[in-house]
Amino acid sequence: MAPYVTEFDLYEPQNADDRELPIQKIAVVGSGSWGTALARIAALNAAEKKGFDHEVRLWVREREIPGQGLLTDVINSTHMNHRYLPDVPLPHNLVAVSDLVNVVKNATLIVLVVPHQFLTPVLDELSKPGVLAVGARAISAIKGVEVAGDQIHTFPWLIEQKLGIPCSALGGANIAMEVAQSEFCETTIGVPSKDDAALWHAVFDSPMFRVHPIEDVSGVSLSGALKNVVALAAGFVDGMGYGGNTKAAILRIGLLEMAAFTKEFFPSSSSLTFSHHSAGVADLITTSFGGRNRKCAEAFIKTGKTFAQLEHELLKGQKLQGVATAEETYQFLLARERTEGYPLFTKVYKISFEGMDPKSLFDDL
Amino acid sequence: MAPYVTEFDLYEPQNADDRELPIQKIAVVGSGSWGTALARIAALNAAEKKGFDHEVRLWVREREIPGQGLLTDVINSTHMNHRYLPDVPLPHNLVAVSDLVNVVKNATLIVLVVPHQFLTPVLDELSKPGVLAVGARAISAIKGVEVAGDQIHTFPWLIEQKLGIPCSALGGANIAMEVAQSEFCETTIGVPSKDDAALWHAVFDSPMFRVHPIEDVSGVSLSGALKNVVALAAGFVDGMGYGGNTKAAILRIGLLEMAAFTKEFFPSSSSLTFSHHSAGVADLITTSFGGRNRKCAEAFIKTGKTFAQLEHELLKGQKLQGVATAEETYQFLLARERTEGYPLFTKVYKISFEGMDPKSLFDDL
Repeated sequence: MAPYVTEFDLYEPQNADDRELPIQKIAVVGSGSWGTALARIAALNAAEKKGFDHEVRLWVREREIPGQGLLTDVINSTHMNHRYLPDVPLPHNLVAVSDLVNVVKNATLIVLVVPHQFLTPVLDELSKPGVLAVGARAISAIKGVEVAGDQIHTFPWLIEQKLGIPCSALGGANIAMEVAQSEFCETTIGVPSKDDAALWHAVFDSPMFRVHPIEDVSGVSLSGALKNVVALAAGFVDGMGYGGNTKAAILRIGLLEMAAFTKEFFPSSSSLTFSHHSAGVADLITTSFGGRNRKCAEAFIKTGKTFAQLEHELLKGQKLQGVATAEETYQFLLARERTEGYPLFTKVYKISFEGMDPKSLFDDL
Repeated sequence: MAPYVTEFDLYEPQNADDRELPIQKIAVVGSGSWGTALARIAALNAAEKKGFDHEVRLWVREREIPGQGLLTDVINSTHMNHRYLPDVPLPHNLVAVSDLVNVVKNATLIVLVVPHQFLTPVLDELSKPGVLAVGARAISAIKGVEVAGDQIHTFPWLIEQKLGIPCSALGGANIAMEVAQSEFCETTIGVPSKDDAALWHAVFDSPMFRVHPIEDVSGVSLSGALKNVVALAAGFVDGMGYGGNTKAAILRIGLLEMAAFTKEFFPSSSSLTFSHHSAGVADLITTSFGGRNRKCAEAFIKTGKTFAQLEHELLKGQKLQGVATAEETYQFLLARERTEGYPLFTKVYKISFEGMDPKSLFDDL
């Protein structure tokens, strides 16, 4: 056994038969690229492993596809999500459903993977009496944080507050299309208890998608949000034409700021989440070399356009995650009078919104 | 102050004037790309900072340059090292000298940056009575480890044994040409004492080359060697056509194996060297995205040629550092009966030399 595997990583889910556990039923709320990729893995596992209801339901916002009928019908007949995960066959036990209440009916394991801005209406619906099954648990694969003044919360925290059920967090070096094509990768799940670890490990773990449960919900959540701010800095470096040394230095400093920020404001989190796990260092690397935050930040430097313009041109007006998080994080640090403790985050904000010279990124780091 | 800066990082070299220290004299032994880049920084600092002899000597193996005269004369008249650091002007107080004894005469700070295979004859010469000044210190920027059967040693250890002087280690995300062009980067120096930290920090630190001293000579040395083994794995991933998820997973697992190996066989080392410092995670990133170990490993997969062939074709017969270290590390682990503890290192060796299927890289990690 490799000496670096921690005890918690060694957790082996108990055989459901031995424990006479109730059958678990999985629902996936959100059918973008990442939601569909996760739903595909969960459905493959539900079909193969003991202890799961065979059918996995996927929430799809219904619309008419010109000439083809309703989107749910198209997905359920072609077993493809053409728009968000083209050319990837989906298992037949994955069923697209448009009614949210119906999606989560009897579900004991609910995967939340809607865009940030849709979370509140989804939670409003799920929190109505009788909608959720008794003993249900949730996991959030939503990137971002919720900031209001000097308060900051993770999505799993919000979900627990609103639904009154335990919520885990999933994050890692996981570009959706590569996961869907079964390329080897890893992910981290931050869990509130060993039972959550067992169940969510069983839902997602497979030979090419290795799941490592750790007891750090906040760390996994914050890493998934803050990595996008560092990826903007990486894109600035690319845009200025600097090489591998500079980019690696920015990643290193960024990773330390991510861990320090999380430790300061979520003291129960662990810095190991950032230094040792896929949700930390590995996700940061992937995002800073391949993601769209990096790409738009490079364009920001090279074209001189604002992020608002770039979002309009490159993302059809969708808000770039890193830019939103950079702004929220900066406002939060300002409210807490702690900007000077996080020079990289602060400069990413000022370069993005206040016209600071990008070359000053390297001062006083 | 950023909360992640450790106390040791905060070390500020005392003003030499206040302490009435003897003037320090720097010698750089080795004039390849990296030796010349380090010598350039040291000479710029020696010219500008208090406490240093103005002249920095650089050991150059003498040869005749057709139509131009002796290499030392060419370097000293053009203030360029055309072969190894083209187009980079060198400070005039950096003086190329062909006689090794003359290079280190009266030097109190000796930078060793010769290729691995030249270290023994250099140390033989330097260990002769009267060659080194009293109170001299060394720093090694040589990559690799020395393995003999079940024994493994770092170069700083060998240097200390042979010369009887303290030896530090320098490593980080430092592509020589980018350092020479003053792109922002960081480096780590592992030091045996606070005095070494002060002196070597003063020699190398500058606004665009940030030096962080840490008390871990072994960790910095081992990271510089083992990162090249992981970079081969990264190259295999590229060669097989996998994407960012897979590469990030291999880097993460590789970084943990690097730290675990060092901790197991050099127990006084710190895993923070790998997770937090430029010599660890940052150097690994740069090497695995940009270096020649990665490049040759990609070609190994794509062409089906042996590493011996690739070294002949791409490196003029020079041994690829990662391949040499993979072999040495594997033989050492075999002698210690510890191969099963390091599955990534072991598989890199077996893929490189025993025809193992590269796809098996992902099994049992």
